[in-house]
Order: sequence, then C-alpha cells, then structure tokens
Amino acid sequence: MPEYATQPVRPMRITFGGADRSVLEPQGPLLTRRMSDLDGLFADGGAWTAAVADGDPVVYQVACSPVPERPTDLPQSVTTIQPGAVGGEFHMTKGHMHPVPQGEIYLGLSGQGGVLMFDGERAEFIEMAEGVIAYIPPNWAHRSVNTGTEPYRFLAVYPGDAGHDYGWVLQHGMGHRVRRAAGGSGYRLAPYAG
Amino acid sequence: MPEYATQPVRPMRITFGGADRSVLEPQGPLLTRRMSDLDGLFADGGAWTAAVADGDPVVYQVACSPVPERPTDLPQSVTTIQPGAVGGEFHMTKGHMHPVPQGEIYLGLSGQGGVLMFDGERAEFIEMAEGVIAYIPPNWAHRSVNTGTEPYRFLAVYPGDAGHDYGWVLQHGMGHRVRRAAGGSGYRLAPYAG
Repeated sequence: MPEYATQPVRPMRITFGGADRSVLEPQGPLLTRRMSDLDGLFADGGAWTAAVADGDPVVYQVACSPVPERPTDLPQSVTTIQPGAVGGEFHMTKGHMHPVPQGEIYLGLSGQGGVLMFDGERAEFIEMAEGVIAYIPPNWAHRSVNTGTEPYRFLAVYPGDAGHDYGWVLQHGMGHRVRRAAGGSGYRLAPYAG
Repeated sequence: MPEYATQPVRPMRITFGGADRSVLEPQGPLLTRRMSDLDGLFADGGAWTAAVADGDPVVYQVACSPVPERPTDLPQSVTTIQPGAVGGEFHMTKGHMHPVPQGEIYLGLSGQGGVLMFDGERAEFIEMAEGVIAYIPPNWAHRSVNTGTEPYRFLAVYPGDAGHDYGWVLQHGMGHRVRRAAGGSGYRLAPYAG
C-alpha cells in the first residue's frame, strides 16, 4: 500500500487520477469508511443496523496524496461520498474537530453536497458544488454530506498538524442533521437530537 | 477597499467570481504588480526598462479571499499572470520564501504555466495546467511563470503565518530562468545568471 512520503518532501506535481478523478497521483493512503464504521452517528439506529446487515456498503473514501500529515506540511485529499440516506438522513462523513486549532478548506469537485460545521454552540451549513470553496475556521467541527443523487466529491487542504478528533462529534453532536426534504427533493436541516 | 476579515472568522462560502473567474467572492485584498514593481528580477535589465517605459503593463494580480493571513487560518488567493516575456524571459511573479517554514499548494485553474522552486541549492520546475496541483514544501522559494499565450491562473492555499520574504529571491535567485524556447514555441530552463 502506498504510504506517506518520508522526510524531507520534495516539490511534487499532483494530479487527479483514476477513471472518475477520485484519487490523487502520486497516491498516498486510501481510507475506506463502510456503514459499519459509522456506529452511533445516524439518528435512526435501526435503519443503520439494517444498512450494515444489507451488505455494509462503502459510504465514503478518502484518497490522500503522499504529502505527510505533520507540522509545516500542507497535505491534501479527495473525499468521495456515495449518494444515499439512512432513515432519511443523507450519507455523511464521521465529522471531526482539529485537536490543534487550524483552518481547512474544501473545494467542491463534482456532485451536490454540503459542509455542516459546529463550534459547540453555533451550527452552519454551506452548500457545495463544483468550484465552491468552504472555509472551515479553527475550532469548528466539520462533517460533509452528499445531498444529491451522484457521488459528491471534494478536495481538502489542511495543515499537517491539525489532527482528527472524532470523539468530539460523538460527544457534542454537529448542531444539525441533514435530511431529505419532504417530497424527496432537496434537503432540510433538522435539530441534531431530532 | 475590501479588507481581511476581523476576528473571529466565521465559516465562509467562497466562489470564483468576476467575468473571467479571476477573483474570490467575497473579496479580500487585491494586489496588482506592474512591470515597474519587478525591478531587478528579469535578466535583461534593458528590456525591462523599455517595458516600463512602454506603458508599464500589469504583469500579474493576486485576488485574496477575506480569510486573514494570521496563525491557524488558511487563506487563499487567485493569481492571474498575463502572457508575455521580457527579453525572452516569460512573465513571472516576484517569487518569495516563507519566513515561517510552511508548505503551500497551487492548483492550476486555466492557461499554461509553471512553478519554479529553489531551496538555495536545488531547483525544480513543475508544469501547471487546469487541475494540476503543485506542492511547495517548506524552505523552497517559489515563483510562478506564464509559459503560454493566454492568462495563466491558479489558486493558492497557504498557512496564514507563512509570510512573504521577497528579499531572499533578490539575494539568492531562483536557480533557473524560464525562457522562450528557440523557434518561439514552448519554454526552456536556463541558468539563473545566464
């Protein structure tokens, strides 16, 4: 399996590769999240259990470049979230807070989606599409959601020492959930506990 | 004039705006570099003096988002380099070193260009086009060059505390110069002193 580059990193030319431009070339680590990896995150636990039993599908993948996650480097990744919903709640990433408060950007590449952000009190949702940048300030947890019917794909650029605290989201939630709108077209924001 | 956002920055939805998608919306600072701002950078000082006298054209512009240049934020900008050459040396940015060693990425948006990088001993040149990412490691000075016949445009994402040391390039050079190839099509790398 390709791994992060060893020190020191040289200048690098990185391109979007694969049939659907879902990976970065040269390739670094590839992270695959199946439904069973998202325990405790969807509001409807019964629907989640059923989805795990029904083939445990891949919900999203994160394809990194070889630029390492370490201080002073600026790694990147392409995330692809498959379309779908669990009990009416759209497919989403686990979501995380940066233990080291650092900003991050997402750039929409294809499909329809959004970024849910939560700082413990305030929640924001930014609609994403090709060519849209979301700025995620330090101290805002963030989760991406596919609100469309095709794979939703985005480029992430983040300081290498930011880290990923997934437990913060399990403890504090994300402020809102992103659900299918009544009638089946589009989305609506619902209270996290609802 | 739009300015950097004041603290604290909220989550932000940023899009490529303007007729030619050359600015980020909402808009932050806009930096314009004319030929006269590039004193001492082109090898052919006589050709540079003539270009300044002949209308002092805009060589490049940098359009920033309002995300501030400060520690823990991750600002972005779109740079547009107009096509052209001075004594056979392609239009280019001043080039700089980050006084705080931090990585940076460029993403090609349109046109043909490249990134010249130099760490004081080694020089690299990465060809850029739409959809190509250049990774600039910490401690490598970097300069962008338009090697084509249309405006060359790229998105930059960089840690807010990296800073810009332009004096380093005046003192150390960039290892290479990027010149028109013989016959007028394409480019060639030439020694910096040449």
